[in-house]
Amino acid sequence: MSDLLIRRADVLQITGDKHTPSASILRDHDIVITGNRIERIVPTGIDPSQFRDVIDAAGLLAMPGLINTHAHVPMVIFRGLAEDVNIDRWFNDFMWPLESNLEPDDVYWGTLLGFAEMLESGVTTTADHYFFMDRAAHAVEKIGARALLAWAIFGSQGHDKIRETADWVRDFQGAAGGRIRTWMAPHAPYTCDDDFLRASVEAAKRLNVGIHIHAAETPQQTQSSLEKRGQTPIQVLQQTGVFEVPTILAHVLGATPSDIEIMAKVKTGVAHAPKTYMKLAMGAAPLLQFRAAGVPVGLATDGAVSNNTLDIWESLRLMPMIQKMTTGVAENLPIPEALYIATRESAQVIGMGDQLGSVEPGYLADLILVDLNGMHHQPLHSITASLVYNTRASDVRTTIVNGQVVMRDRQLLTVDKAEIAAEVRARVNRLAQRTPAKRIQVYNP
Amino acid sequence: MSDLLIRRADVLQITGDKHTPSASILRDHDIVITGNRIERIVPTGIDPSQFRDVIDAAGLLAMPGLINTHAHVPMVIFRGLAEDVNIDRWFNDFMWPLESNLEPDDVYWGTLLGFAEMLESGVTTTADHYFFMDRAAHAVEKIGARALLAWAIFGSQGHDKIRETADWVRDFQGAAGGRIRTWMAPHAPYTCDDDFLRASVEAAKRLNVGIHIHAAETPQQTQSSLEKRGQTPIQVLQQTGVFEVPTILAHVLGATPSDIEIMAKVKTGVAHAPKTYMKLAMGAAPLLQFRAAGVPVGLATDGAVSNNTLDIWESLRLMPMIQKMTTGVAENLPIPEALYIATRESAQVIGMGDQLGSVEPGYLADLILVDLNGMHHQPLHSITASLVYNTRASDVRTTIVNGQVVMRDRQLLTVDKAEIAAEVRARVNRLAQRTPAKRIQVYNP
Repeated sequence: MSDLLIRRADVLQITGDKHTPSASILRDHDIVITGNRIERIVPTGIDPSQFRDVIDAAGLLAMPGLINTHAHVPMVIFRGLAEDVNIDRWFNDFMWPLESNLEPDDVYWGTLLGFAEMLESGVTTTADHYFFMDRAAHAVEKIGARALLAWAIFGSQGHDKIRETADWVRDFQGAAGGRIRTWMAPHAPYTCDDDFLRASVEAAKRLNVGIHIHAAETPQQTQSSLEKRGQTPIQVLQQTGVFEVPTILAHVLGATPSDIEIMAKVKTGVAHAPKTYMKLAMGAAPLLQFRAAGVPVGLATDGAVSNNTLDIWESLRLMPMIQKMTTGVAENLPIPEALYIATRESAQVIGMGDQLGSVEPGYLADLILVDLNGMHHQPLHSITASLVYNTRASDVRTTIVNGQVVMRDRQLLTVDKAEIAAEVRARVNRLAQRTPAKRIQVYNP
Repeated sequence: MSDLLIRRADVLQITGDKHTPSASILRDHDIVITGNRIERIVPTGIDPSQFRDVIDAAGLLAMPGLINTHAHVPMVIFRGLAEDVNIDRWFNDFMWPLESNLEPDDVYWGTLLGFAEMLESGVTTTADHYFFMDRAAHAVEKIGARALLAWAIFGSQGHDKIRETADWVRDFQGAAGGRIRTWMAPHAPYTCDDDFLRASVEAAKRLNVGIHIHAAETPQQTQSSLEKRGQTPIQVLQQTGVFEVPTILAHVLGATPSDIEIMAKVKTGVAHAPKTYMKLAMGAAPLLQFRAAGVPVGLATDGAVSNNTLDIWESLRLMPMIQKMTTGVAENLPIPEALYIATRESAQVIGMGDQLGSVEPGYLADLILVDLNGMHHQPLHSITASLVYNTRASDVRTTIVNGQVVMRDRQLLTVDKAEIAAEVRARVNRLAQRTPAKRIQVYNP
């Protein structure tokens, strides 16, 4: 017996290179999944009796599970608590005081809540960046998602914290049957001094892992770094050796043209979270320049206190819309490029471009079935336009990670949503306490 | 027997004025609806046996039905057919050639499809602007929505078309038991000459109705009008008498400071459709200046060929996010103002501020029940933040228009969605024909 047959699906294919990608649909195909891999994709007609499980996907679109390249998933527990404020007040008056309330169990339940939201919306892999990530890993293991986890640390916590999180990286590498990978995560150049960054790089090299870090989040951060030390944040990362290991750089709205030249020469990718940039009035990212230089871009949500959801579909459409608006050229970031970024390029950003981001034989069996029959898609003149501009998280019917069906016909199979919501609600009053003096850091880049 | 009792709802209340509004929640209240009006709102405890129909809204939020102040609803039949192009190509190479295929029955089925999408997403009233609006009115009557309909006309169609649509305005005023109002709709100053505008005003005055018109859609249109005739589009509307009747002005991204002074002195409102502006690279509207001058702003979707949906929730969050991003000030358009615009101010734009946009006694019974229990809202630290930044169209459970339940627990009661989708699909091949020479107009403002 083979493992899983998805029958009669239309299958999204993204081909070509990142600058001239092409999006097309294989109509009425069967997808054979063996273990955690996609084995074959053939025109419908396979005998279903030979499979342990069969999903009838007639009328549904099969596409790669979506990838969230930068989030702070457990922050869902604080969502709605920091509204209508710029980034400096967002950090100093809201986020960092709130996070002084954080306990390890909050991270466990917050991770379950956030990944439940994401699996329901078709995100199968997330590169997460937060605290108490041992607890996050247990939640990821339970809920059945794939994750690249990184334990955020500040220079103020001292070098012991580097050693501690390096031990965690070692201990949790390949956990949950290979669904969990772990990286190092010094928070940002403005919260980690050069020695701290260098020591983090040494740990990453020793462990053969990458570094997930915030960098040049705004043009102001770049300006401030230039004034304080004559170097941009990207130059700081270069001279402290951070680019000697693979990196995910979150946001990078403040990249200069020479920063982009540096980035193009190393193994890095930019995580792009446009809703945060709009809500916190941070500006727009130089995405067209990144991609022209060959720096891959991945879709991201960032955390739910700035986003305020973990809805990657919203990121998918805000990304091209902001580029069109700010350049005045509607031809920029056309639909096939947006879909390429959402799939293959996001996989590349997290270092898995040869295994994720495409429904094709040999790739990991992370895929979703999307229902484009709703009134808001009809008539379906263009499936690819509908994917970028019409699709709602609630259109995702079924989510498969690593060959396992984790949501089937909108029913999440791995966790009890009511239990998660109740556990999180029980923590709300304590979590909402906000004493500015108790902030865990000060934002003064 | 009274008509309808909505039990145990939390009820959104928007109070105060437009510059310092306040949003609050009445917990556990009963809403009594008699005929087409809200009669009372009291703490839960009314005996349900005295009502012909009872809806249990425990755990749901009751709020005003949303208002779409500018759409071209039947254009849903073309959605997905004009992607990644600027406004001039959008008109000349796509939209106006496509619309040469339009037949009256297309408008009927397109109107049903678009209003089905909107009723499912909680839009109860739409100010629509399109062709063959006699057929649109029949569709609105059938589906149970409320609408302010306007039959779009071009100067090239001649003054007979003014008389013809004026007769339609007269004949359909108050149709569908009062749910339908009708206005005049010369398309725009750049497609209607001054005599045509003046004659449209005369008809509107005679019929005691307003005018729904596109105006200064982009800064380029304003610049071009200044070059060609030394007047802005808003000045053209003023000197042709258009502002002597109530108006809805669509878009107005090209308003100058002195235009805004003109607009502040007359009975007008701006319909704001931010997704179109982003997708077509048109820029951002001076919303803060409109509101500071006292010009009301209403939420809109525009048509589905630029949007590409009729999802007003998306407009609700794009509106403040764009203002924050373009001004660099995240404090701009805070959540209570966004909700005020979505409700009371949108009602004011369509001339019904004393009857729509609030759940309060005496107002028309247009309201929706929204489910904020999904994972993407949890934990619900802030209901109002969740309404603006987290709510999906699919969170709307029940929609009531004019005292009639048109969607109950996600089931649309007035139409057969499968029939509508099939009728529209049967038209797709004919509608998608695109011969630029057959365009119905030329865009050259």
